[in-house]
Amino acid sequence: MVVDKGKRCKVAERGEESDRVDGELVPYIEKLQEIQDELEKVNEEASDKVLEVEQKYNEIRRPVYMRRSDIIKSIPDFWLTAFLSHPVLGDLLNKEEQKIFRHLISLDVEDFKDLKSGYSITFNFSPNPYFEDTCLRKTYSFSDEGTTNITGTTIKWKEGMNCVNGEARENNGSKRPFGEESFFSWFSETHPKRMPEMFSDEIAEIIKEDLWPNPLKYFNHEAGDEFEGDEDDDEKGTEFDDEDDEDGDSDDEEEDEGDEEDDD
Amino acid sequence: MVVDKGKRCKVAERGEESDRVDGELVPYIEKLQEIQDELEKVNEEASDKVLEVEQKYNEIRRPVYMRRSDIIKSIPDFWLTAFLSHPVLGDLLNKEEQKIFRHLISLDVEDFKDLKSGYSITFNFSPNPYFEDTCLRKTYSFSDEGTTNITGTTIKWKEGMNCVNGEARENNGSKRPFGEESFFSWFSETHPKRMPEMFSDEIAEIIKEDLWPNPLKYFNHEAGDEFEGDEDDDEKGTEFDDEDDEDGDSDDEEEDEGDEEDDD
Repeated sequence: MVVDKGKRCKVAERGEESDRVDGELVPYIEKLQEIQDELEKVNEEASDKVLEVEQKYNEIRRPVYMRRSDIIKSIPDFWLTAFLSHPVLGDLLNKEEQKIFRHLISLDVEDFKDLKSGYSITFNFSPNPYFEDTCLRKTYSFSDEGTTNITGTTIKWKEGMNCVNGEARENNGSKRPFGEESFFSWFSETHPKRMPEMFSDEIAEIIKEDLWPNPLKYFNHEAGDEFEGDEDDDEKGTEFDDEDDEDGDSDDEEEDEGDEEDDD
Repeated sequence: MVVDKGKRCKVAERGEESDRVDGELVPYIEKLQEIQDELEKVNEEASDKVLEVEQKYNEIRRPVYMRRSDIIKSIPDFWLTAFLSHPVLGDLLNKEEQKIFRHLISLDVEDFKDLKSGYSITFNFSPNPYFEDTCLRKTYSFSDEGTTNITGTTIKWKEGMNCVNGEARENNGSKRPFGEESFFSWFSETHPKRMPEMFSDEIAEIIKEDLWPNPLKYFNHEAGDEFEGDEDDDEKGTEFDDEDDEDGDSDDEEEDEGDEEDDD
């Protein structure tokens, strides 16, 4: 395992000194392994301490987010407007979903106690004509093996209102070129087979890392400015814009109008 | 800025209640802005605390890395072998560079005091027939605007030994399909124009985040196992392997031989 023939071949290839790579090095390599073990211990301790700090500040943020939710409830269509003003999320909501989102009264993103093991995104709706549920939750659980387990509320759609299987979409002009790419198809997608896992995670991560920390930024139409800096999200944005061009329904145009009027 | 015409249009589009989005909401939105400011303060404090922890543990790791470097000096061709055994870095070194790397006596990766502002990678060579320098350093400085400034030692090549402008590569059978993709072309690339920035950063990040934390892992030919888990690096690996197939010089094959013999 330590100094093996494989390496001897490789060094031999490079000519002289190949004979020096042998038993006499074992003590050095064992010492090196001890040092690597020592470093690993330090790294584990470091990430534990970082986690402690992050947990502490999550606790501090929690009540502030709660106060924020209360205020948001007083602003009609806050989440709908924030979603529509977001360069990526705005393209996700099809026309019925925009109607449904008028009943979205609060959004909540919560890390698991052990931050590293996952998070949940909860959408709280007022009683509405579309589904029986008032609380829709999607949960991402990360295993130590690096796999992600996605679970979500199974939506009890009311008769003929199911956005996902298309019932309600037959007469929907703004249907996406990719039928799956809508808010509720993302929400209902817990086994990222029909949709690339990237897409599924992308939406969740944008909600968690970009919308949730500062939805007011988007409600106030600052999305454009915010995104120029960020290549990665720019690409996503563009990607989605192309789809928009195809179905001719461009929230971005609305956004631009908004921005221009901001400038006045 | 706060509730603008742009949004009114958007809500109007969705019909009723458009009149409600007006002055009466201003106090709520101002309160919301206060809460966002409060959250931002908490976030800044949190990242400062995390930085403190990371700085503290960098200080703790430092002397351990120094002890590690001393031991590594006693192992001939340690860095050359670690590089060659790495699924990505192994493909970077062309034949002359492998010869040059036999003079690489120590490698050092050091974060700036304020971790977030950058890091440097230092290659210490013994006096060698290829260049006058014994210390080659490449530095990545991150600006608050998110741009990266890359600087590096200008190598004083000895007569006819310049690996980068091709002087020494004319008679080099294993020349890469992309002339730029070699260790010294990466090292000399401080304005990522000729090379995609991704490539330039990828190499630096692999050295910093993957090789430096545990080079023994690669010296011991564990690269294959290590990388299976990591899609991202797998892709990079594959990408590079393809180039290998083209120039018919496959370190991976050598590695496989090594691994097989490990199994015996």
